[in-house]
Amino acid sequence: MEFPALKNDRYIKALLKQDTDTTPVWIMRQAGRYLPEYKETRKQAGSFLDLCMNPELACEVTLQPLRRFDLDAAILFSDILTIPDAMDLGLYFSEGEGPKFKNPIRTQADIKKLFVPDPSEKLRYVTDAVTLIRHELGGQVPLIGFSGSPWTLATYMIEGGSSKDYHHSKGLLYENPAALHQILDVIAQSVVLYLNAQIEAGAQSVMIFDTWGGVLSPEAYQEFSLRYMQQIVEQLHREYEGQTIPVTLFTKGGGQWIELIADTGCNGVGLDWTLSIDEARKRVGDKVALQGNLDPNVLYASAEIIRNHVKQLIEKFGNHNGHVFNLGHGIHQTVNPDHLKVLVDAVHEFGREIRQ
Amino acid sequence: MEFPALKNDRYIKALLKQDTDTTPVWIMRQAGRYLPEYKETRKQAGSFLDLCMNPELACEVTLQPLRRFDLDAAILFSDILTIPDAMDLGLYFSEGEGPKFKNPIRTQADIKKLFVPDPSEKLRYVTDAVTLIRHELGGQVPLIGFSGSPWTLATYMIEGGSSKDYHHSKGLLYENPAALHQILDVIAQSVVLYLNAQIEAGAQSVMIFDTWGGVLSPEAYQEFSLRYMQQIVEQLHREYEGQTIPVTLFTKGGGQWIELIADTGCNGVGLDWTLSIDEARKRVGDKVALQGNLDPNVLYASAEIIRNHVKQLIEKFGNHNGHVFNLGHGIHQTVNPDHLKVLVDAVHEFGREIRQ
Repeated sequence: MEFPALKNDRYIKALLKQDTDTTPVWIMRQAGRYLPEYKETRKQAGSFLDLCMNPELACEVTLQPLRRFDLDAAILFSDILTIPDAMDLGLYFSEGEGPKFKNPIRTQADIKKLFVPDPSEKLRYVTDAVTLIRHELGGQVPLIGFSGSPWTLATYMIEGGSSKDYHHSKGLLYENPAALHQILDVIAQSVVLYLNAQIEAGAQSVMIFDTWGGVLSPEAYQEFSLRYMQQIVEQLHREYEGQTIPVTLFTKGGGQWIELIADTGCNGVGLDWTLSIDEARKRVGDKVALQGNLDPNVLYASAEIIRNHVKQLIEKFGNHNGHVFNLGHGIHQTVNPDHLKVLVDAVHEFGREIRQ
Repeated sequence: MEFPALKNDRYIKALLKQDTDTTPVWIMRQAGRYLPEYKETRKQAGSFLDLCMNPELACEVTLQPLRRFDLDAAILFSDILTIPDAMDLGLYFSEGEGPKFKNPIRTQADIKKLFVPDPSEKLRYVTDAVTLIRHELGGQVPLIGFSGSPWTLATYMIEGGSSKDYHHSKGLLYENPAALHQILDVIAQSVVLYLNAQIEAGAQSVMIFDTWGGVLSPEAYQEFSLRYMQQIVEQLHREYEGQTIPVTLFTKGGGQWIELIADTGCNGVGLDWTLSIDEARKRVGDKVALQGNLDPNVLYASAEIIRNHVKQLIEKFGNHNGHVFNLGHGIHQTVNPDHLKVLVDAVHEFGREIRQ
């Protein structure tokens, strides 16, 4: 496809550990409820799912934070549960309770019915949004596509929604690991097709969110989460139409396993805030770029304190290539958007300073 | 006070890294909702708080798991929020929503009103329960007393209950750290008096639960959580009436910081299941005993699988002194009690085997 030329490639270059004039920054959930204009569009769309499934409105909310802040990347506005929904599990959202599935995977018969959805059919609304956003961006910044990790998606599919104790998903993991592997295998194949379809539609980088990998034991993490992320990394378009497509893996609570994550062949490793970025860099060296990792709660503090925390984090990473600034998790919905502006501008200011 | 002589001292000896005939085992939340007899007593008591505040019934539920399982320790049945309740914050439980406080700590005026409660007054129901349990145990196994950590208690006191994003508590941490230190200092003083009162009343070991330490950045963990736990460790009765009182610290999600925790001078470090116990032992050496760390979800699997996981964990720790077997977190309320029996018996069987 033909798209406008990319003007700001800091984010892509940082993931490829190339020189940049300053540290690039984007924010997980940068399109979201902390923005009044997001809430407006959401109201217009109807439900959260209606918003995700409407390419024009998904494009609109994707672009909203870029109008306010000097961000170095856009990320597709979507939900991590689009794949299980396309598998006919019946995704719905009950107010205040989060995502639910009408048809959770509990029996061998449920597993047998699982299939790999063709992204050009039931997930067409996602790739349509990607292409539209890419055009509307006009080359301002690169567009990130994403998916949930197989393990993370499996927890929702097996539990039928969010979970506190992972009764059914971890129950299956310990009682019948072969059955869980069957499920994870179908999901992993689906994620490969889904992310490659996003790349073909215009995504210039992709990220895999392993939100619940951190609830596993080290052995279980490797066998049931990381192994499938590695399979995906190996099967993605890493070069597409002459461009390198960087891949970032993010396991929340995965700080203890970053060496293993870095060994998958991904370009970037996302860090939550429970690991110091200098310590992380010591452990993985130059093998991968690092993304993160400010505690999202710093944004509740005043401008001067936010600037100090940004400065400290950039100094901790030091004058090396390969840092993408981000929060360690999504921005909270009660944050004042002006505080995010302070953060974004401070990243660029101190990112320039450290390079001198 | 005069109490019956201790017959089974495996748990105490393991925390002191002395020889034992097998690996001792107890289970976090061993007195709890997975037991039908607990539910009966709870119904009899009325609310959860009524149960905590009734020494006879608290004693009854403390002893219930010991009638079913060959456990090597009893733990006082109580709540971690007894201290803030004694500070007049007005603890209550709303069904399905967890603990709440009528008077959360939000302003400087709230902080000024904080005081260190005298455990012989408003917390008398706790020390009465300790003494009663100690008598009723008849020396069968030692009794563990406990408290929440200052940081963990502070999150509830500042948020007014449980929290997803720690808006107010971490907001204060970043915006006004001095105010948070004031709060933590009062709590830490209170915990010292509270745990020492439990020891004086008959507790033979104490444990500090830092349930929310793992949501902090490494720097914040050291400054706002670990520092206060260390102060407490330094001020506890470590010897009382000729007996050594071992102290265990447990930070959920604290696997990245176990060297620092071990340096506080505590006897035991509790581990959740996200760190391999052999790796943990490599990192802290013989400095402390380790408690843990099976994933509680293993108990959803069948007997043979439970036994295999127990065996593996004991072999990983190896034939060293200083292992107290436990889950990495509290037992889930939907677990079949018969499965816990399999676990407890397997610990003793394989604990004997590895010593041969």
